Amino acid sequence: MKLASLKSGRDGRLTVVSRDLARCVLADGIAATLQAALDEWATVAPQLAQLATRLEAGTVAAARPFDPRACAAPLPRAHHWADGSAYVNHVELVRKARGAEMPASFWTDPLIYQGGSDDLLGPNDDAPFASEDFGIDLEAEVAVIVDDVPMGCTAEAASRHIQLLALVNDWSLRNLIPGELAKGFGFYQSKPATAFSPVAVTTDELGDAWRDGKLHLPLVSHVNGAHFGAPDAGTDMTFSFPQLVAHAARTRRLRAGAIVGSGTVSNYDRSRGSSCLAEKRTLEQLAGGKPVTPFLRFGDRVRIEMFDAAGRSIFGAIDQRVVPVG
Amino acid sequence: MKLASLKSGRDGRLTVVSRDLARCVLADGIAATLQAALDEWATVAPQLAQLATRLEAGTVAAARPFDPRACAAPLPRAHHWADGSAYVNHVELVRKARGAEMPASFWTDPLIYQGGSDDLLGPNDDAPFASEDFGIDLEAEVAVIVDDVPMGCTAEAASRHIQLLALVNDWSLRNLIPGELAKGFGFYQSKPATAFSPVAVTTDELGDAWRDGKLHLPLVSHVNGAHFGAPDAGTDMTFSFPQLVAHAARTRRLRAGAIVGSGTVSNYDRSRGSSCLAEKRTLEQLAGGKPVTPFLRFGDRVRIEMFDAAGRSIFGAIDQRVVPVG
Repeated sequence: MKLASLKSGRDGRLTVVSRDLARCVLADGIAATLQAALDEWATVAPQLAQLATRLEAGTVAAARPFDPRACAAPLPRAHHWADGSAYVNHVELVRKARGAEMPASFWTDPLIYQGGSDDLLGPNDDAPFASEDFGIDLEAEVAVIVDDVPMGCTAEAASRHIQLLALVNDWSLRNLIPGELAKGFGFYQSKPATAFSPVAVTTDELGDAWRDGKLHLPLVSHVNGAHFGAPDAGTDMTFSFPQLVAHAARTRRLRAGAIVGSGTVSNYDRSRGSSCLAEKRTLEQLAGGKPVTPFLRFGDRVRIEMFDAAGRSIFGAIDQRVVPVG
Repeated sequence: MKLASLKSGRDGRLTVVSRDLARCVLADGIAATLQAALDEWATVAPQLAQLATRLEAGTVAAARPFDPRACAAPLPRAHHWADGSAYVNHVELVRKARGAEMPASFWTDPLIYQGGSDDLLGPNDDAPFASEDFGIDLEAEVAVIVDDVPMGCTAEAASRHIQLLALVNDWSLRNLIPGELAKGFGFYQSKPATAFSPVAVTTDELGDAWRDGKLHLPLVSHVNGAHFGAPDAGTDMTFSFPQLVAHAARTRRLRAGAIVGSGTVSNYDRSRGSSCLAEKRTLEQLAGGKPVTPFLRFGDRVRIEMFDAAGRSIFGAIDQRVVPVG
């Protein structure tokens, strides 16, 4: 099934969306919010699935057209948002550009950072920044949402706690990163509010594309309407989602609704394009001595979407405009 | 007023507690949870204050004895938990011990990291760890809870968004930190679930001890019943809470219920003792060439408390036992 949160208050209103993203129905009688559904997932998910089946069959009288512009993030605020960097070839590339060796352990020990989860942007919300000088960049990613994960969970067990997938734009402020990482405490100001796709989908919606704990489909990004990249999210993903979740749960429980991201999707096959400007600029630097593509400016648009084998949008599109903070 | 969350479900039940921590009353008719209260703080806070006044006057029929063992963290799960490192003398000391220079910018640009907020421990909850080899350490701290803070908020404006204060034990796994920080993405596995005091209090409960955006009282820690330290939280705090909140809000909004911590309280006057074993071990190393005090073992107890000028506990005690994960 496909789930969305229509904008309403701080947590949105849980909505079941049809497979073709054309129609939807409020899940009011079942769970008011997606967080409430995840809190009691074992009980609530079957009821939502039943409603989804009826919606597909066209037998829900209350069904109405689905408008992604009315959507908040599936979890407009979450209690945990941890983002991995699972496409290690991307990390290796960026290090190469600045002449730094990558530790061999990066191939076996996942990188992960904790992001802010109190303010997650809807798919069509403007993305506000104080200054263009921050080096505004997209990061197109895939993320999973889990139910309760016990501490010390194995990757195998973790895979059973992955309930939903969504797309992410993990907005990054590139010019703030070097100074911030040099301080040693990781990202904070350099990772502003993150945006999510209109719908989150259960793994069974993905068919064979969801296997080995990875989503084997291209993640398509456009910048200002021009094709930017479509690397395959299942290719060159060094750590699967279950491995990322297990890493995150090594020393603590993850509670229902925790979101774990893949990091910028990136393929060795550079003809697939990139999922962030930083990678494109790095490739330009390696090829021609300096980056050519600028970071984003106010007024620029970023669109991120994923299609199934038949060309149908799975999650709906993240389509945002970069704006000065109001 | 003083607020607690009695253990119930995932978010607890909001409870108003008497100034002497002896009695309490459920705030059910006003707001079911502390998060719900913070979501509508301007409306809800006056109603809670009125109930608190009646509780003090002894005119609340439903009042019952207050039992801190029945408490979850004031926010059993939050949407944002960012911890500063505002006692820069502590950072300087730790760096000195390993022969590293501290950048001068550390005196003007706050260090802050994002912690996990989906699983915050109650004051008397056992603190579970997978291994004693992780280097289990306490970190006694003060934290503030804010309502909605706009992006780019000044420190002066930020001070008006600080609504509650609480005590924190920011459990740290010292032996995981060097490896994790070397990877460049900051703390994750090395910062397991954080514990909070039984009650959170409004700034007006603190009288003159709350001034200049700092809490000017000793933070008292005991390990296994022995006095460990009582550094003054208002002394040598390089960045005030409003400065920390403004730093956290530079590139994003903070939403109601965001928690911002001070970092390990530490005074230049080392006779005050420490708020974490890492600092004590550093002092031992500088004095005698090697650390003597071990990290915590299963069965060890940590107690953290703060008293007003008359010797009355303000927040109740964090009093936890270190246990193997079950």
